[in-house]
Amino acid sequence: MENRTEIAELGEFGLIDHLTKNFEIHNASTVLGVGDDAAVIDHFGKQTVVTTDLLLEGIHFDLMYTPLKHLGYKAVIVNLSDIYAMNAMPTQVTMSIGISNRISLEALNEFYEGVFLACEKHGVDLVGGDTSTSNKGFIISVTAIGEVAPDKFVKRSTAQKGDLICVSGDLGGAFLGLTIMEREKKIYLENSNIQPDLENESYIVGRLLKPEARKDIIEFFEQSEIVPTSMMDVSDGISSEVLHICKQSSLGCVIYEEKIPISDESRQAAYKFGLDPTVCALNGGEDYELIFTLKQEDHDKIILNEEISVIGYMTDIEEGCKFHSKGGNTFNITAQGWNAFQK
Amino acid sequence: MENRTEIAELGEFGLIDHLTKNFEIHNASTVLGVGDDAAVIDHFGKQTVVTTDLLLEGIHFDLMYTPLKHLGYKAVIVNLSDIYAMNAMPTQVTMSIGISNRISLEALNEFYEGVFLACEKHGVDLVGGDTSTSNKGFIISVTAIGEVAPDKFVKRSTAQKGDLICVSGDLGGAFLGLTIMEREKKIYLENSNIQPDLENESYIVGRLLKPEARKDIIEFFEQSEIVPTSMMDVSDGISSEVLHICKQSSLGCVIYEEKIPISDESRQAAYKFGLDPTVCALNGGEDYELIFTLKQEDHDKIILNEEISVIGYMTDIEEGCKFHSKGGNTFNITAQGWNAFQK
Repeated sequence: MENRTEIAELGEFGLIDHLTKNFEIHNASTVLGVGDDAAVIDHFGKQTVVTTDLLLEGIHFDLMYTPLKHLGYKAVIVNLSDIYAMNAMPTQVTMSIGISNRISLEALNEFYEGVFLACEKHGVDLVGGDTSTSNKGFIISVTAIGEVAPDKFVKRSTAQKGDLICVSGDLGGAFLGLTIMEREKKIYLENSNIQPDLENESYIVGRLLKPEARKDIIEFFEQSEIVPTSMMDVSDGISSEVLHICKQSSLGCVIYEEKIPISDESRQAAYKFGLDPTVCALNGGEDYELIFTLKQEDHDKIILNEEISVIGYMTDIEEGCKFHSKGGNTFNITAQGWNAFQK
Repeated sequence: MENRTEIAELGEFGLIDHLTKNFEIHNASTVLGVGDDAAVIDHFGKQTVVTTDLLLEGIHFDLMYTPLKHLGYKAVIVNLSDIYAMNAMPTQVTMSIGISNRISLEALNEFYEGVFLACEKHGVDLVGGDTSTSNKGFIISVTAIGEVAPDKFVKRSTAQKGDLICVSGDLGGAFLGLTIMEREKKIYLENSNIQPDLENESYIVGRLLKPEARKDIIEFFEQSEIVPTSMMDVSDGISSEVLHICKQSSLGCVIYEEKIPISDESRQAAYKFGLDPTVCALNGGEDYELIFTLKQEDHDKIILNEEISVIGYMTDIEEGCKFHSKGGNTFNITAQGWNAFQK
């Protein structure tokens, strides 16, 4: 960055004008966007889906290795992922930020480039937000709004005994990306002459820094006339998520280690760090894949979709939540996912 | 407070369960509330109105003199105020918080008591949110959602020449409440034996710590078949707000000092601090009153409502934005409202 413009030069309203000036409305449901007390949305007979997430510097991201454009992209994506997890389509987001004077206007422009890129890719309008200074750290709060045909949303609590448990994509990559970035940061802090060794790690680093929300899976459901019996997104690791579905549906489950999708890149990285790839996949967070349950008769509809893996099935609650290892052992599934209060 | 329970003992999901366990859904439009990836809302043919606000410790509030119950109440109210300012009725809120380990569970319970009180008073459901630790300070992000009959929302940009400019309630009180609390804080920090001198100041302190959103005014509009030609809420001071309406409507205005509603308590407090009550009313923020413009023929409909004052009228843009003082002088109105980037 060559120039540095202080945010204070623009003031709050000047800043909002600056950040939103090139932003076009794409969605017919956006009746009124940025620039008034509130935005107005008309979902024309569909139901409105709302979710919100807080991203805090030092808790959820580290600016030392997170490019601001990626951060803006990710801040939107993690919210859209929750909308898709309801079997809904996102239509609008609001973006509130608290920024210290460490952040220049040029840096904020980069952040919003990522925000706009995510919005454009997913056909979503930025319709509001709030901007403030913060005394410490970059604070991001995003609310995403979506639409769904009346009562076609999919909850966590409606899985049935015998349903297949499925996940999209592959798991554990984001956690391994975080592991490598934290390692490189430590090395850099000890000796700033050593350049980061990220060769061959672009896949897992990308899983961490530039996650994608699975719009394609929701579109596939629509095309294939599939309605999952339950669904949620994978933000804390599938151990944690599958326990949510079991608890809220009052059921048990069986998961098979050999069925858990793990990319070759993640497997190699895990071995390099002396970690068990399966443990990374079970307990690593932030993959933003979808975990869902399907009626057994829908199995034929997904069999050709390489982005979907069947990893187990739902059982009676009395049978508990079980994990069958490749070695033939059975364990109880416990949630060791990411917990914002134990950091 | 006698007991102190650490938040970490509960974990994130335990905390959410704890905070939301006694919360009932009041609104028919709330199809699905807390406990899934997202909430689902059905406004049944009405349009959806969305607004969001960030409240940061040390920037927007000071926990030294802000009781947590009041803070929870205010965090909701300032967002509902934006919904009312669209001529809409609020129906749902989401509440995201970032808390340091300084905040105990008992303290958080108090905060949520205020949140629930505001929700109950305004008939609004808490349908979601996010909870996280923060490295420093209490972080609050609220999104409010409301409904309005199709295209009956009122923007800032639609005032017409000749329209009457009106405000609800009285102005400047919250700023004077802030002034007295900051004075008492300073005295206390110098000598903690001196007890705060807030006798006779309960009105202005209440205006700061426990503001109200003007649902009654929106209900009055409905009953009286009034649709304002433009409207916004008074969060930065009416100087700033009236300039927004003028700029966005491409008009000028005239405001009369003698018409600006100021309570006796605010006037007395201003004199005590050697401040001009009118300047406090023009530039003081956080009153959360409504400023709106009306067609002249609607004047008779508001004349008996003591909560509404006509303070001026809209003019051509060439005439600028003018302020007529009691002394007969005319000044240009300038925005000296609260700016989060100049603190």
